[in-house]
This record gives sequence, structure tokens and C-alpha cells, in this order.
Amino acid sequence: MPLRLAELAVRFGCELQGDPDALVERVAPLQEATPGSLAFLANPRYRRFLAGTRATAVVLDAATAAECPVAALVAPNPYATYARIAQLLHPQPPVTAGRHPSAVVEDGAQIDPTASIGALAYVAAGATIGPRVVVGPGSMVLAGARISADTRLVGRVTVCENVRIGERCILHPGSVIGADGFGQAPDAGAYVKVPQVGSVEIGADVDIGANTTIDRGAIGDTVIADGVKIDNQVQIGHNVRIGEHTVIAGCAGISGSAVVGRRCMIGGMVGVVGHLEICDDVALTGRTMVSSSIRQPGVYSSALHADEARRFRRNAARFQKLDELARRVRKLEGAAGVQGEDDE
Amino acid sequence: MPLRLAELAVRFGCELQGDPDALVERVAPLQEATPGSLAFLANPRYRRFLAGTRATAVVLDAATAAECPVAALVAPNPYATYARIAQLLHPQPPVTAGRHPSAVVEDGAQIDPTASIGALAYVAAGATIGPRVVVGPGSMVLAGARISADTRLVGRVTVCENVRIGERCILHPGSVIGADGFGQAPDAGAYVKVPQVGSVEIGADVDIGANTTIDRGAIGDTVIADGVKIDNQVQIGHNVRIGEHTVIAGCAGISGSAVVGRRCMIGGMVGVVGHLEICDDVALTGRTMVSSSIRQPGVYSSALHADEARRFRRNAARFQKLDELARRVRKLEGAAGVQGEDDE
Amino acid sequence: MPLRLAELAVRFGCELQGDPDALVERVAPLQEATPGSLAFLANPRYRRFLAGTRATAVVLDAATAAECPVAALVAPNPYATYARIAQLLHPQPPVTAGRHPSAVVEDGAQIDPTASIGALAYVAAGATIGPRVVVGPGSMVLAGARISADTRLVGRVTVCENVRIGERCILHPGSVIGADGFGQAPDAGAYVKVPQVGSVEIGADVDIGANTTIDRGAIGDTVIADGVKIDNQVQIGHNVRIGEHTVIAGCAGISGSAVVGRRCMIGGMVGVVGHLEICDDVALTGRTMVSSSIRQPGVYSSALHADEARRFRRNAARFQKLDELARRVRKLEGAAGVQGEDDE
Repeated sequence: MPLRLAELAVRFGCELQGDPDALVERVAPLQEATPGSLAFLANPRYRRFLAGTRATAVVLDAATAAECPVAALVAPNPYATYARIAQLLHPQPPVTAGRHPSAVVEDGAQIDPTASIGALAYVAAGATIGPRVVVGPGSMVLAGARISADTRLVGRVTVCENVRIGERCILHPGSVIGADGFGQAPDAGAYVKVPQVGSVEIGADVDIGANTTIDRGAIGDTVIADGVKIDNQVQIGHNVRIGEHTVIAGCAGISGSAVVGRRCMIGGMVGVVGHLEICDDVALTGRTMVSSSIRQPGVYSSALHADEARRFRRNAARFQKLDELARRVRKLEGAAGVQGEDDE
Repeated sequence: MPLRLAELAVRFGCELQGDPDALVERVAPLQEATPGSLAFLANPRYRRFLAGTRATAVVLDAATAAECPVAALVAPNPYATYARIAQLLHPQPPVTAGRHPSAVVEDGAQIDPTASIGALAYVAAGATIGPRVVVGPGSMVLAGARISADTRLVGRVTVCENVRIGERCILHPGSVIGADGFGQAPDAGAYVKVPQVGSVEIGADVDIGANTTIDRGAIGDTVIADGVKIDNQVQIGHNVRIGEHTVIAGCAGISGSAVVGRRCMIGGMVGVVGHLEICDDVALTGRTMVSSSIRQPGVYSSALHADEARRFRRNAARFQKLDELARRVRKLEGAAGVQGEDDE
Repeated sequence: MPLRLAELAVRFGCELQGDPDALVERVAPLQEATPGSLAFLANPRYRRFLAGTRATAVVLDAATAAECPVAALVAPNPYATYARIAQLLHPQPPVTAGRHPSAVVEDGAQIDPTASIGALAYVAAGATIGPRVVVGPGSMVLAGARISADTRLVGRVTVCENVRIGERCILHPGSVIGADGFGQAPDAGAYVKVPQVGSVEIGADVDIGANTTIDRGAIGDTVIADGVKIDNQVQIGHNVRIGEHTVIAGCAGISGSAVVGRRCMIGGMVGVVGHLEICDDVALTGRTMVSSSIRQPGVYSSALHADEARRFRRNAARFQKLDELARRVRKLEGAAGVQGEDDE
């Protein structure tokens, strides 16, 4: 479905530079675009590809518009504007209402007639599937779970008993929502399983990546607020609460009963210890380990970065005696009569 | 099924403080409990909620019993006692013997008549399913695998060829037991796959979390002993051995041929390098990296914790010259005639 | 199928020491081998088991051949030679052409008559399944995906739309190839989903471990080259490119648009930040964090190792003041008139 630049400019509030009747029908990277493609420029590292682009049009900001050799859609936030246009050019296939003959839907499941239940999907008795929901192939919605309108379980998603999922969510393959939290009471050298009687409540517009797991609450629910975006292979423990519009990158883990604020940005492989709080507007760079509450917005880190292995090993060996080294410096300061800062 | 406090006190060996005929029928957190609920107090951080609780009864220890405004079940280990009572109040649904019509059971599978085979589950020829086992919806038990009595594959669990699983285990969705270990022999700049001819042996009372993977042995088996509890997204390599009653938190990884002792506590995101040993009774705090054998019981760590990013970066830059800094201190000690400790 | 040592020696170019007519029919570890078994010795730590082995024959190198108490197949690379013989002794079961009656194959899927489609597998319209491909039980191949000859989806593998997989690959259970990359454009305090219109291209002879995820490209493809071997629970972001014969151990994560060279060895739990490059022949030890491009072949590290927790905590506390400590040393050097190295 080719679209006129004039129409895109109006619809998305861009300033148009170039032929209003030019047509775009797909997106492409600046350096690989061919006529008919729309590209974008948001990251300065790709600016060098602008001059040579063969795209029909480029979404970019006012600062780079003058350099654009082809038509331009000028927007204050080119990446978001590009995303919206790309959604239009590459729409989701329409939802085909009905059940695949191989799907298994138990009596007592409530399925909206506009929903789509895919091949080999399973919907248990007492589950509720809302309007235009897609239960993709091989997905499983267990008893009492509720999936709200326009949510899409892409395929092979597991939604356990009584989990509630809001509107317009996307859940990717292999994600498991509402498995038991890890509750183990130590007793006489062994462990007693603590029943996990809570559930999971997921708001609207939440994305959940492939093979991500979100556990049900021990007592009370695990809560993921509206607009949260979660990447692949993230683990979220029981009774965690994640605030609105927080993003969590791949392989991060949030331990049980941690509370994460709104608009946080949690980098890849970040670990958050349980039973603590992170306030709103905190950014954690990749692989940060959070082991006590964070009460000030800001950026936090804790990961050392790659170094040549031999040098790293030497420094790491010194680290194991760092306390001693500090004491030696203190002693030198005493001997020299130099005023050191308080090192306790 | 409401239960009398007197009955609970007798059954679980608690001292009862309050009305023996009071009834509880569910569990709830102290601060949200309503009449009919049983709460518990084990973690001192929740003690502040005790005075205001509306629970019918609270499980707690002798030290806090006097503060309890409602009936109390006094136990030396309130968390374990709570767990046992919660199991009674919130029992697993009974196992419905038989096969769902959509399940696929090959000729030559041996299935105990009391077992339950769920929707769209698959049991291959030569697999053995014991008494009261639940093969939940979408689970797959491949040839020669053996699942012992009262074990529950919650749903979408994969049990590969010849894997043996003991009694009373719980395996959560997405777990994969017995996929090939990562055996790759380098040869002339490429790799030759090393066939993984061993299997996996899992003892009794083992819990395995969602999307956890336990690989089959290269030669000989990977062994998980009785009572081991494993959280979500844990990776256990080929020929690993885990001792009795060890717990492993989410996202930990144990590399091939490592041997972990009994009663260890392995924190979230811990990494254990292959071909080493960890003795009994070792605790590894979250994200510890173990790269040589640990022969003394105790607590071990290696993760730096979150700091304000700019400060962290400055310190990390100094770390990259830590060896040099130590040499400079040594030189100062020489110049000052101060006796430093041996820093080699 | 017992094999004569003479035949193995000829076929794999080994020097034979011992009875050419002796037969082996299975592999076993040196210390557990019984007559009829073939063992191998490649790792010096197992040399102590050689003298007592009861194997019929051992694959080893010239340096250890003289110590071998039984027949020996002497090879320059015993591990690779062992791997090849083990493949012969423990072959994959032959591919049974045809479709399991419970498989769901949509009209418009192209399936080679020699391919095997397992129980409860799903192949969408427009998918192409090549000769002798195994689509194991519960696997799912979505529209437009193409699986080339002799590739094996072990079971419960998800291959999303338009993904292309080369010849002789092995994909383990729970792996998800081609789920959406994590593209989220921030806009006014919330996020707009960036459509992921690229796909995934996987070369020949690639192994992919259980529960590993490889995302489709945002624009353009994610590319995994020939001979790449990937362990379990690895996460590979959109538009990543991995070069030939690189190996990636368990739980590693490669962020979007990173480019990894050929013949790299990426250890377990390694993290690679997005939009950077790692050149050919780089080894990253376990849990290394790469946050800027690596342009020199070599070995790189960044993980501190386990230490007794109390000592670690003391050292970590000093680390938080390491910059200050360095300044104090500088000051001492000034006071002493000692020439320190430049510490800026």
C-alpha cells in the first residue's frame, strides 16, 4: 500500500521537504534503501550514510534536514515518527476471527467471536479471551486467565491460571506468565514449598519478549503497569511491581518483591535483589547489580568492562588486596604527615 | 475448606494462643488480611504490620507472639509452618486420571492408569509415566524417559529421551530437561559435534523453574540429587552434579562437569565455571562468579554493586591501573622507609 | 553396530596400537569404561585414569600413547577424532519420512517428501521444509520460513515468519528464531513499537541451544554465519551479525546491531553492548562485559572472581573510593618528591 509523502506529513505532523506526491511503500536502512523506500536518521553514527541514500524520503530532524539529498519528513522526534509510519507501511496482518480446527477450547472458556485461536492452541475452561485477541499457534491460556482486547500472544505463549493481561499487549514465543514464584521455606536441612496463591496482573500496552518469565505472586499479585516494555529472557520474580513505561532490556532479572518505579530504563543483564525499591526515573546501565534501594533518580552502574585478559588478571589480583592497599596508603600518609582524606 | 485453629495447632505442633474454634480458609499478607485469613510473620521487616492486622490468626515465633493482636499459632519456624498450612488451605487440584482427547500417546508408552495426560501433550513410545503423575498441557515426554510417582509437569515441559525424573518433582513451563550438552571439538578452524550419549537423572522432590534447561551428559549422566530446588531460567550444563537440598536462584548458570555440594545456596545470576568443585554448605551471593574450586564452607561473593554512574566510571578507570597504583605505593614505601606488607 | 579398530584407524587416519580386530560398540569415560567401550584422553586432568582403564581402546595423542594399557587410536587431535567415532557408534536415528497424524500442515506449505514432521508440529502456509529435515514434535514453522536440507528441529522449536535456516543445523527445544527485536522509540514519556520488518538468516552447520532466542532484524536481517555454535539460553538481538565458526557459550547476550567476527570464542554469561564490533579471533572469558569495539585479536576479561564474602565486601567498599585513593597516592608522591607515573 504505497503512501504519498503529503499524506504522511499531515498525518504525523511533519514538515515536508520535497515532492508531496512521491510514494513510499516500505522502510529500509539509509544505506540500503532503493526508490520507494522510506529511511530515517536518528542516531548520529549513521549520518555519514545520508548523502548517498537512494531512499525516496528520509525522516529526520531539523538539524540534518538541509543535508538530505532526497525528500525529507522533518520531525522533532524522527525515530518515533519513523516507527509510526513503519507501522502503517508494514501493518500487522488482520486478525482472522475464529478457531483453527486443531485448537483445543474447553467448554466453559469464554471467547469473543472476533478473537483468533491458532493451530494447536489450548484455552482452558474458565479462561476469557477478549475482542480481536490473537492466541497464536501453540499458545496456552489456563483456567481463569483473562486476555483483554487486541492483545496478541504471538505463538507458544503460556498464560497460567488466573493471570490477567490488559489491552494491546504483545507476548512473544516462549514467554511464561504466572508460573509459581520461587518460594522455599528452609526446614531442618530441606525445603518446604510455599504455595504461590497470588497471580499476575499485566496492564495495557505491555510488550513481553521471547522466553521471558514473570512469576505469580506468593500472596497477592505480581504487577506490571501500563506501557512497560520487556525484552527477551527477562526473569521477574513473585510480587515484583514494575511502574508505568519502564523498559527492561534482555536477560535482566528482578528478584521477588522488588518495586521498580516509573519510566526506569533497565539495561541488559541487570540484576535487582529482592525486597528493595527503585524510585522513578532511574537508569541502570548494562549488567548493573542493585542490592540496596535507589531513592534518587539518575544513572547507576556497576559493571567493569572488558580489558586485555592478562592485565585484567593482574588488576583483579590487586583488587583482592585493595583494603590492605588503602591501609598502606593511610600508613604512608601518617609517616609523611600528609593529610589524607578519611578512608573509613 | 475452613480449618479450625485447634486442628492446625495439633497437626503442625504449634502452641495456640486464642480461640481454638476460630476458622481460617485462606492465606493473606498481614497488612491485607481479612477475617477468615491466616497470615504469617517471619521477616522482621514486616513486624510493623502485625499490630494492625485483621487476620483471624497469625503464624509467628515466640519472640513476637506477645505483640499479636489476634489469634496466634506459635512455631519455632513460622515460615515453614505457614508453608505447610498454606498447602493444606490451597491444595493442588486433585489429579484427574486419564488422557485428554487431544493428547498424543504413542503405542508402547507405559502410562499408569492414575496418571493425567493433558491437552496436546505428547508421550513417545518407550516412555514411562508413573502413578498420579501429571503431564500438563503441551508437555512432551520423549522415548525412554521415565517420570516417577506424583511428579507434575505443569505444562509445556520438555523431557528428552531417556531422562529419569524422581517422585514428587514439579517442573514448570518451558523447562527443557535433557537437551544435548554443548560439546564441540575444535578441528581445523571449525567444530565437530561431540555426541551427547549420557542422560539426566533427577532425584525426588526436585523443583525446576520456568524456562530452566538441564543438559544431558556427554558420556554418563547429569545428576540432580533429591530435594534440589531450582528457580527460573537456570542453565545447568552436561555432566554437572548438584548435591541434595541445594537451592539455585534465577538465571544462575552451572557449566559442564562442575560438581556442587549439598545444602548450597546459589544466588541469582551466579556463574560457575566448568570442571570444578564446590563443597557442601557453600553460599554464593547474587551474581558471584566461581572460577576455581571452593573447598571451605562459607559465604562467597564477587559482584560490585550499583553506584552513581559517573563515580563508578571514575573508579573503574582507576581499576584498570590498579596494578600500577600498587607498584607506586610500594615505591613510596621504599622511599619513606615504611614497612609495607608484601604486595606480591 | 560394533566396529573393528582397524576400520576406525583407516577411516579417521589414526595410528593403531593393538589388536586390529578388536571391536568397540559404544563410548564411555576412561574410568567407567568396560570391554567393548571406546574412551578418549584429551584433557590432561584425566590422564590419571588412563592406567586403570578397562576400555577396549582409547583415542589419544602420541605423547600419551606409550602409557596406554589397552589398544590405542593415536591421533593428533584426539577430541575431534573421538567426536567423529562417537557419531559413528551413536548415530542419529534415521529420519522417518512423512507426517505424524497429529501434525498440522497448512495448505500451501512445501514439504519435501523425505522430511519428517513430528507429533503436534505445525507448519504454516508458505513455509518450505527441505529434504530429510526433521521438524520435531511440537515445533512450529511459520509462514514463509525456509528450512534447508538435513536440518533438525529437535522438538518444540519456534521458527517465525520468513526466517531462513541453512543445511545441517540443529535447533534444540525452546529455541525461538525470529521473534521481534526490541525496538521501542521513546516519545513523550512512553514508547512506540518500531516494527521489526527484517528477518533472520542462519547459515549451514549452525547449532542452537535450548531456550536460545535470536531476534529478527528491525530493518534488514540478523545474520548467523556458517558453522556458528550457540549454547543454551543465549540471547541475540536484532541485526546482530555473527561470523563463521564463532562459538557462544550459555547465557551470553549480544545486543542489537553488534557485529562479532569469525572464530571468536564467547564465554558463558558474556554481555556485548549493541552497535559495536568485535574483530575475528577474539576470546572473551566467562562473564566478560564488552562495551566498546574490540579491534585486536586476543583474550579479554572483566569478571571478578569469588572471594570470601566479608573480605570481598571490604575490598568493594574501597573500590567505591578508588579514585580518591589514587589521588591520595599522587599527593604522597608529590610530598615525597617521588616520580609517580602519570595517573590521569
